[in-house]
This record gives sequence, structure tokens and C-alpha cells, in this order.
Amino acid sequence: MPLSAPLSVPLPLSPSALLSAVEIAATVAFALSGLLAGARKKLDAVGLIVVAGLAAFGGGTLRDVLLDRRPFFWVEHANWLWALVLLCLGAMLFLRKRHLGVEAAQGQAAPQPRRLRVGTERAMQWPDALGLGLFTATGTQLALAMGQPAIVAVVMGVITAVCGGVLRDIVCNDIPSAFHDHRPYAVCAFLGGWAVVGAQALGWPEGAVLLMGAGLASGLRLLALATDFRLPSWE
Amino acid sequence: MPLSAPLSVPLPLSPSALLSAVEIAATVAFALSGLLAGARKKLDAVGLIVVAGLAAFGGGTLRDVLLDRRPFFWVEHANWLWALVLLCLGAMLFLRKRHLGVEAAQGQAAPQPRRLRVGTERAMQWPDALGLGLFTATGTQLALAMGQPAIVAVVMGVITAVCGGVLRDIVCNDIPSAFHDHRPYAVCAFLGGWAVVGAQALGWPEGAVLLMGAGLASGLRLLALATDFRLPSWE
Amino acid sequence: MPLSAPLSVPLPLSPSALLSAVEIAATVAFALSGLLAGARKKLDAVGLIVVAGLAAFGGGTLRDVLLDRRPFFWVEHANWLWALVLLCLGAMLFLRKRHLGVEAAQGQAAPQPRRLRVGTERAMQWPDALGLGLFTATGTQLALAMGQPAIVAVVMGVITAVCGGVLRDIVCNDIPSAFHDHRPYAVCAFLGGWAVVGAQALGWPEGAVLLMGAGLASGLRLLALATDFRLPSWE
Repeated sequence: MPLSAPLSVPLPLSPSALLSAVEIAATVAFALSGLLAGARKKLDAVGLIVVAGLAAFGGGTLRDVLLDRRPFFWVEHANWLWALVLLCLGAMLFLRKRHLGVEAAQGQAAPQPRRLRVGTERAMQWPDALGLGLFTATGTQLALAMGQPAIVAVVMGVITAVCGGVLRDIVCNDIPSAFHDHRPYAVCAFLGGWAVVGAQALGWPEGAVLLMGAGLASGLRLLALATDFRLPSWE
Repeated sequence: MPLSAPLSVPLPLSPSALLSAVEIAATVAFALSGLLAGARKKLDAVGLIVVAGLAAFGGGTLRDVLLDRRPFFWVEHANWLWALVLLCLGAMLFLRKRHLGVEAAQGQAAPQPRRLRVGTERAMQWPDALGLGLFTATGTQLALAMGQPAIVAVVMGVITAVCGGVLRDIVCNDIPSAFHDHRPYAVCAFLGGWAVVGAQALGWPEGAVLLMGAGLASGLRLLALATDFRLPSWE
Repeated sequence: MPLSAPLSVPLPLSPSALLSAVEIAATVAFALSGLLAGARKKLDAVGLIVVAGLAAFGGGTLRDVLLDRRPFFWVEHANWLWALVLLCLGAMLFLRKRHLGVEAAQGQAAPQPRRLRVGTERAMQWPDALGLGLFTATGTQLALAMGQPAIVAVVMGVITAVCGGVLRDIVCNDIPSAFHDHRPYAVCAFLGGWAVVGAQALGWPEGAVLLMGAGLASGLRLLALATDFRLPSWE
């Protein structure tokens, strides 16, 4: 259990506080990706909140429906619903000019004319990639703990991380960018999920499994963005 | 319990008969909104029936899936499925010329060239608004009775009232008009849901809670349409 | 039980082996319809696999979510997920030129300029129609065995057979062809489902019920395609 040792070292910032911070940053990044997607489609305030909520909580909710698991995250921690509404209203009040027209965080890195757009996009790539890793690893662990077969657990991890954005895009009447933009996103989650399965099979402690699986998925995502790697298509 | 008193007065039309009448009128209005949306997209008979069914029963079904509640309304009262098919076939046979091209009931009140369209639209605003109120209140009450937190119960009420139209629009390949048309619809449901939560917390009897919550949501909707109130957007 | 007799006759190819063969051929045909729909939308490899998986397993999964039934087919037989990935990667490697641009199997039989397209389309009509029949019959039987009312069981059979293609088309940002192309597809499933209900009520053995219901739905579908039968629309 070499990787678990650092987790028990007393730090100024404890691992669980760090984990919470990453989780909050990632959820906010996912919600903002929904807010931006909705703004591009000129949704009203209700639509913006719904699409932000779908992007933030839709993946975990779909996973829980498929696994027949209750309560949902946003039922158990219902205050997050208020946080979501406040985040959306705050963004609508304070961010209005700076961020409009920004491409969604999820890998649509096509060059934009205005510097601010690229800046916002880049700023969101990091928390978005961290969320990809974190939600993949926790989703896979959760499905394994419920006794699902390995491949199913990995698929559940991928669904947790990816399907919020998929539902966001379906409601916005777009083909989901995760299926369309030729950037590795679900693939990074898939590999991270298998790393979780492997590490768990080797008997690693839970914290180390999480750290490694999430780190691998996030790292692969950031590496793919940095190297401008493209997924193959058919033809 | 002042508001509950009228409910126990023997009337020519009993409250539960009135409630049933409102429920039937509202469900028919929701189904017709699906039928009209499908007709605008030139769906075939199967598509029209499916979209009408989604508009009528989709919101309650999604709520029940999220709450892990069975049987669905249309399973417990399976005769409604026959009623739906007959309604659709009847509409296709008898309404064909008069109503084609009518805008959906859910608030798309943009001025239309032909008088009939505006007439049909207006005729459907009333049962549609009654359905908004009724389904919000019953959905919220049902979730409260299952022990959900207040904000979750309100969200379930909103889902009951709004998501039938959302699913209708997704299948018709439109951005859901509830998220897009800048008319208060989900917002009225949201406020009506909180009224249900508040009245229940004050110990009002169930019938009074229903009447007040449904009346508030429906009234706000009709007021918003009458005053041409618009929701803010982002920008 | 006259129809069940042939099922117990020892054949070189046993009925259950034949059933498995039909099931595999039909699932592959459904997956290929997703692959082709995704290719027309220029999805990347991840999108192609997801859409193929939705087309193949989405109908049964939606039925099981509605019936609150677990495990899903692809959880109980998780190897099918690997088969799906291999099928998609194999198709992307080996079929690329020959099949691109082919219309989906589900009845879009509009004349195509190139002979190959029509050939592929025709080749897929048979396994697709067999899948329509098989999945309708098994879905209806399963819902009846869970004690659902007859009309609900038939609807579940239709959902099993049709909703994979519906989810495929929604993710591809199309109006579902089953609701739009005026070809009888869900109607054949509906009639086949009622045949299952009727035969079961008459006490036929399970194998005979399956054979008859599936055969009727598949036969009606092939007959409708052969005679170019069109569903009525509204107007």
C-alpha cells in the first residue's frame, strides 16, 4: 500500500478537504459548462438553471437510476440545489459580458477570435478534467462496491463523468460533444475506470485507488488536450 | 383550517368530481399540445400518439422513476392508454384542418396570421394552466408524503408539471419551449410547490393544500400570460 | 398446443440454438443501424460505439427501468459489451468504404443513387425485422410474467423493440425515424404484442407464444416493406 501512505500524513490541507475542494471545483465547472451551452442557445433563466443542473448532476443521477440506487446526490445533499440556483443567478448577474459565446469546457478547443473566450475555455479545462477523473473513479468504485461486473462498473464510471454533458447537449438540441468532437473524453474515463478496477483487484486501499484512477483519467485528458490528440472516426 | 371548510360542504358538483374534471381536462390539454407539436413536425400516426402520450404522462413518469415509485399512473389506470389512442385518432379524424399549424399551448404566444390559431391557442391556455397547477401540487404532495426534503419535493412537483412538455420537445427535436420561450412556466410551478410545502408545514388539510398550491401556480401562469411577462435571459 | 410440438422435435439445429442465432443476428443488425446513423452524423469512435450500444440495448434497458427490473441484459451478460466494442471497431476497420452513407435499416427506403446502399439496406431489413418481432414478443412476455395489465405489457414489448432506435435518433439529433418515416414499425410490434397476449390467454405454451408473436410482428413488417405500405399522417 505504498500509495496510501501519503494520504495518512498530516497535512495543512487534509486529503478529505482537498477531495471536497476538487469535488466542488469540478461540479462548478460542469455547471458552468451547462450555463455557457444554454447561453449560446439563448435559453431563459429557467433553462439555464436546468441545463447547468443537468451538466452538474445528470451523470451521477443517470448512473443511480441504472444501478437502482437511492437517494441521489442532490437529494441527500439538497443544499446543492440552492447552491446551483445561486451560482446560476450569480453568473447571470456578474459574468454576463465577459463569458458570453465561450465554447463549452468539454474539449471544443477550436480557435476563437476573441482572447477572452480562449482564456475562459482554458481556465475551465483544468477543473473539468479534474471532474472527469474524480467522477469516473468514484462512479466506478461505487458500482464495484454494489457487486457489478468489472466492465459494467467501468461503464458506470464513464456514465457518471460523461452523461451530464450528454444530457446538457441533448436538451440544447446538439449532438453531444463527447460523441462528436473527436477529443478523448470518455476514452480517458474508460481507461481511468479500468485503472480503478485493477488497483482494487490488487487490494490497494480505497483512497489510493481513487487517487490513482482519478489522476490517470484527468492526466490523460490534459495530455490529450496539450498534444491536440484526435480520436479516429469512421472513414 | 378555514380553507378546508368549503371542501366539505355538499355541493351539486363535489370537490372530488371537480378535481377529476380538472385532471381530465388538463391531461387532454397536455396530450393535445403533444399532438400539435407532432403535427408541426409532420410525424406519422405512431409518432403523434407517442408524443401526445409523452406530453400527457411523461412528467409524472419521470418523477416516479426518480422517486423509484411504482406503479405509474398509466399502469395503475391502464385505460388512460386507450383513451389516449382514441383521443389522438379522433383528433386526426375530426380536427385536421382547423387546428393544423397551431402553436403549442405552452406559452408560444407569438402573433399568428390566422385567427383560428390564436383562438385554439387561447382555448388551450386555460386547461394547460390548470394542469400546470394541479400536477405541480399533486407531485409536490406526493414527494413530501414519501419523506423527501422540501426543495426536492418542489423540484418533483415542477418535474411532474413541466417535463412532459420537455420530453415532447426533445422527441420533436426542438429545444424545450419551457426553457426557451421566456414565459414563466416552471417558475409558476416552483412558487406553487413552495406554497404546498408551506401550507403543509402549517398543518392545513390535504384538500386545502392542493387547492391553494394548484390555484397559486395556475393563477400566476394566467397572470403572466395576461400581462405578457418575460423571464430574464443571460445578457 | 399444436404449435409447440415442432419445438420439442429433435432437430439438427435446436430451437434454442435457432433462437440464440436470431437474437445475435438481430442485436448485430440493431447495433449496425446505430453505427450507420452515427457515421452519417460524423461521430467519433466513442460516439459510434455509444449510439450502436443504444440502438442494440437501449430498448430493453428502458423497458427494465420502467418495470424496475434488474439486472439489465448487458449487466447479466456483460460480455456483450465487449462484443459491441469489437463489432464497432471491426466495422470501422473493415466496412468503411462499402457502407458509408447507407440509410438506416429502420425503414428509410428512399431510393439511393448507389447500388451498394440499397443492397446493404435490403440486407439489414431481414435481421432488423426479425429483431422487431423477437424483442416485441420477449418484452411482452416478460411484462406479462411480472403481472402487468395486457395493454401495458404490449406497450413494454413495443418499447423493447422500438426505443433503441428512438434513443439512437435522439442522440444523433434526429426526429426518431420510427415516429416520422410513415412506415409501420411500432404498429407491427403493437399487433405482435397483442398476439402474444391473446395466445398466452389461450394457454399456449411459452415457445409457441414467442414463435407466433415474433413471427406475426416480423411478417407484418416485411409485408409492409414489400408492399410499400404507408402510415397515415395528420392532414
